[in-house]
Amino acid sequence: MPKLSDAVRSGALTGNVLAQDCPSRNILKHVTSRWAVLTLIALQGRTIRFAALRRMIGGVSDRMLTQTLQTLEADGFVHRRAFDVVPPHVEYCLTPLGQDVAQHVRGLADWIEDNLHQILVARPEETLQSADREA
Amino acid sequence: MPKLSDAVRSGALTGNVLAQDCPSRNILKHVTSRWAVLTLIALQGRTIRFAALRRMIGGVSDRMLTQTLQTLEADGFVHRRAFDVVPPHVEYCLTPLGQDVAQHVRGLADWIEDNLHQILVARPEETLQSADREA
Repeated sequence: MPKLSDAVRSGALTGNVLAQDCPSRNILKHVTSRWAVLTLIALQGRTIRFAALRRMIGGVSDRMLTQTLQTLEADGFVHRRAFDVVPPHVEYCLTPLGQDVAQHVRGLADWIEDNLHQILVARPEETLQSADREA
Repeated sequence: MPKLSDAVRSGALTGNVLAQDCPSRNILKHVTSRWAVLTLIALQGRTIRFAALRRMIGGVSDRMLTQTLQTLEADGFVHRRAFDVVPPHVEYCLTPLGQDVAQHVRGLADWIEDNLHQILVARPEETLQSADREA
């Protein structure tokens, strides 16, 4: 049986995220994972070292940032460049595909940031208190 | 100490998703959670019953869809309407805020669906095989 990814690779199919077996579902899952969203946003328009990137993303651990960068690199959204020097020097930036996808993620985050006041005001008080606990 | 959500509610602050304590972070987390992304997309432009919605979203369980709808309802993105009839009849649709946020999520999914061929071709073969296993 031909594999679904072969059909998509050949250009015979486009994706459909609502279909359980579509490879687009996994890409969407990677890109919208908790730390990937923030990593894509933080990498927009810059080439940056791991430690600096970590400082930009409040609350991320070394381990989670490493995993997130590896997944985004495997999907072709992040480029990792290691310089052969002592001490080691590694930089990260977005690939052209990564810049495109980051723009959509940034658009979503912009909308939430700009409408946060309206969202919080619309929520019942009870939900708001649980948001304070969650934060 | 004044709560962060009070400052945002009063309109004194806008959100910043990269800041760990910003309430926008939780909204972003809810909206980009695995099933919320697909639920927002499936609800776009329609009023629909639970069972029909579940059929639209390949692979979702009753439990996960119920939880997702509750979170989206608490954030003010989904409206739940229960009719007082026997047997019970409950419908779901997006609120105006939900329509706005769904448009951004749909934009991201559209980009992935349209560029899936390019993304898969750009990935090393090894990653592609693991995508087939993951699916």
